[in-house]
Amino acid sequence: MGCRALLLLPFLSFGAATTIRSGVKTLGSLHLPTNPTSEPAVANNYSVLYFQQKVDHFGFSDTRTFKQRYLISDKHWQKNGGSILFYTGNEGDIVWFCNNTGFMWDVAEELKAMLVFAEHRYYGESLPFGKDSFKDSQHLNFLTSEQALADFAELIRHLKRTIPGAENQPVIAIGGSYGGMLAAWFRMKYPHIVVGALAASAPIWQFENLVPCGVFMKIVTEDYRKSGPHCAESIRRSWDAINRISSAGSGLQWLTKALHLCSPLTSGSIPNLKEWISETWVNLAMVDYPYEANFLQPLPAWPIKVVCQYLKNPNVSDTVLLQNIFQALNIYYNYSGQAKCLNISQTTTSSLDTVGWNYQSCTEMVMPFCTNGVDDMFEPYLWDLKKFSEECFNQWKVKPRPHWITTLYGGKNISSHSNIIFSNGDLDPWSGGGVTKDISDTLVAINIPEGAHHLDLRANTAFDPATVLSSRLLEVKHMKRWISDYYGSDRRQP
Amino acid sequence: MGCRALLLLPFLSFGAATTIRSGVKTLGSLHLPTNPTSEPAVANNYSVLYFQQKVDHFGFSDTRTFKQRYLISDKHWQKNGGSILFYTGNEGDIVWFCNNTGFMWDVAEELKAMLVFAEHRYYGESLPFGKDSFKDSQHLNFLTSEQALADFAELIRHLKRTIPGAENQPVIAIGGSYGGMLAAWFRMKYPHIVVGALAASAPIWQFENLVPCGVFMKIVTEDYRKSGPHCAESIRRSWDAINRISSAGSGLQWLTKALHLCSPLTSGSIPNLKEWISETWVNLAMVDYPYEANFLQPLPAWPIKVVCQYLKNPNVSDTVLLQNIFQALNIYYNYSGQAKCLNISQTTTSSLDTVGWNYQSCTEMVMPFCTNGVDDMFEPYLWDLKKFSEECFNQWKVKPRPHWITTLYGGKNISSHSNIIFSNGDLDPWSGGGVTKDISDTLVAINIPEGAHHLDLRANTAFDPATVLSSRLLEVKHMKRWISDYYGSDRRQP
Repeated sequence: MGCRALLLLPFLSFGAATTIRSGVKTLGSLHLPTNPTSEPAVANNYSVLYFQQKVDHFGFSDTRTFKQRYLISDKHWQKNGGSILFYTGNEGDIVWFCNNTGFMWDVAEELKAMLVFAEHRYYGESLPFGKDSFKDSQHLNFLTSEQALADFAELIRHLKRTIPGAENQPVIAIGGSYGGMLAAWFRMKYPHIVVGALAASAPIWQFENLVPCGVFMKIVTEDYRKSGPHCAESIRRSWDAINRISSAGSGLQWLTKALHLCSPLTSGSIPNLKEWISETWVNLAMVDYPYEANFLQPLPAWPIKVVCQYLKNPNVSDTVLLQNIFQALNIYYNYSGQAKCLNISQTTTSSLDTVGWNYQSCTEMVMPFCTNGVDDMFEPYLWDLKKFSEECFNQWKVKPRPHWITTLYGGKNISSHSNIIFSNGDLDPWSGGGVTKDISDTLVAINIPEGAHHLDLRANTAFDPATVLSSRLLEVKHMKRWISDYYGSDRRQP
Repeated sequence: MGCRALLLLPFLSFGAATTIRSGVKTLGSLHLPTNPTSEPAVANNYSVLYFQQKVDHFGFSDTRTFKQRYLISDKHWQKNGGSILFYTGNEGDIVWFCNNTGFMWDVAEELKAMLVFAEHRYYGESLPFGKDSFKDSQHLNFLTSEQALADFAELIRHLKRTIPGAENQPVIAIGGSYGGMLAAWFRMKYPHIVVGALAASAPIWQFENLVPCGVFMKIVTEDYRKSGPHCAESIRRSWDAINRISSAGSGLQWLTKALHLCSPLTSGSIPNLKEWISETWVNLAMVDYPYEANFLQPLPAWPIKVVCQYLKNPNVSDTVLLQNIFQALNIYYNYSGQAKCLNISQTTTSSLDTVGWNYQSCTEMVMPFCTNGVDDMFEPYLWDLKKFSEECFNQWKVKPRPHWITTLYGGKNISSHSNIIFSNGDLDPWSGGGVTKDISDTLVAINIPEGAHHLDLRANTAFDPATVLSSRLLEVKHMKRWISDYYGSDRRQP
């Protein structure tokens, strides 16, 4: 029972193997679906363009092509001594990433930079086979990180050949979350195309046994521990409280009412309930931003602190504890006060992205997660690759290759590469799979103590803590060095 | 006419677009089919093994596998402080490469090295679909350098996990010709798997416009210029002599007899004749070794010098000139004195390899070649990508992507990589597309003035010139440094 609840948790990997739930999306995509600042940092001053890509870069018999969408802004670009900042799009609509990566817009003038946001194949409008793209494993066969990197390489080649002045300019890859992984990998695999990469909140080590499978949930738990007395302990106790209440006479009815759920609980839906609650705690950890944000629902500044105000006392009866849990959940789902009830299968964004990422996590992006209930506040759950693999096969008729990413991209053995910034927020559970220590002089880690999921990529705001401001300055400093190194050498793009 | 003769020349790229002739093989494969020393350097002290590879590393819907053949010798391997020398097999039978890479056997003891020779997919016994492997473009779809590198990566991972003591040892990639290109690219793309690469006679720049398309034939010509007075000039004049004689009354009959051809010439076969002769001159340039060799036919030491003894005087009549040309050809085709006639469609090795490389040169390995008749001794020929592309499509139903290799592997912009030795013989026409100057402290060029095609990878012989001996010593010195760097760092293979 306990295991099952966590099995359904919408991590990258869990979500993949199980029924696709809309809620899976948020975590499954590693990403925040909307702009956390109340005002978008980005005006619509970009062009929307399309580039014809080969469906298969790695073979020659399939000659089909598709249109990859990308956005360009050259407002601050200078042909003399300028640069190109290239967002390596991840699992979602590129316009949404464009609007949520205020950092690039903020630094464009200083770096005399053209901004390019490239959409990842199979997401947004860049669907290789239109609405058939997710039809079956044959159609999904070209959804891999390698194909996506090749798209980026071909697109940059195209831009350099067609935009006068672009050819002899340095390109820097920038991305967050899975996009950050792609930025880092792009620099590793195509160092002749990008002079460096800013990989924000990129869990490139959340694979195989590179980090303990429990580290993610441990960091989530730590966020709650630090945000209020007994907060994590209250949550830890809530699972048994749910078990006890739901197995008692009219417990399900009581619980439905206490949690203000839109649909009545059944004994079969208790695992889903616990999954949904767990997911909420995880989501909050990812978006524990220092300012009021409009995430899935509007949220206050430092939302976990607000949530924890309701979870100060674990030593109460089961019913009081769960009433408190409701108050906490209500912050997340009903900060605006508009919701009439809470929906445990609530959809947050379009399901398309979920489908794509779900497939990716069942093929290349196999990220082991686990909990033990001791180092974390969740019910114990063991990582079971065999079971995971079977579930993937049932769902997609493909089998994951859990070692492939490390074979391809090097796992922890990446010291021969250069010019990559790995930035991580200490509050972000994904930092557990990230690079948080310098590997060399040019493979540097920037840790942001008060940062959640790639806060540094977001637009400057008046509420930013000093640590993220200084991190952004440091990132710009590195990028400027890459640019000046490029102009100082004979090195030019091919 | 003149163009056509060269169009059919069996270069990597020319051969691909035209009728597959058996003679295409030798040059087309960039390789020497037999051991140039009279005694094989290598005893059969290796194991022949097979590893199950995925047909498609870059997709998940195709679950077919095939058996990749590889050879292992651990006679000199030491588990303490040892190393693994990994031959990145190219377009042919791996046993043949094993027997022709005496260098690895010669240095195994000094480097305490396990030797591994991995066969390239679609060659030798490593056929993904058995005899159907070359059936059509669908079956050939997985014949790419990327898939081959992924095979190597997976095989090394397998060896490290299954051979006790291998896991924490440094692996060095070694290859010659196309195998040298693969060795270099393997280090570039998988630096976490190999600590360095020895890329012998690897023309990684024989693509797009990275080097002048005429450089290859210019070097061939230079070899003849240096090997005897008026030698190249005699050859240059021979083409018009052939034209004049073959268009005269009984010229074809005379020519057939003068050249001791097995089959009578027709006016339509004159381009083939000139192609076959050109090919012979090119082959001789590749195998212009300092000792008696058993190549296509047995050859004397410094064969071009011997050939040029017959070509000292260009100022003779057409008939005398072509009689001299015959004497020269006869050195190549009949040094043993056994041949009764010369066959202009002579086969030198199995056609299977030709087919595979032919496909590769029509897809990824698009190498432009040209001649102008001024800087070289051949008839002028312009590189015509459009025509080439059409011919490839007619033959394979695929279209070449001439820019892909440079987009993928960086072209001339490879300075961010490390630990690659590019060795080239000055006599080798392929050195024109090779790296012959240091790029950095760790991307070093070794030039062997008296070397033909990857002479350095061959076994030590008493007849080796000092320059190749010192080159081999330098190569070992670099490899030892990579090994000691590996053991001196915390860096271990994943």
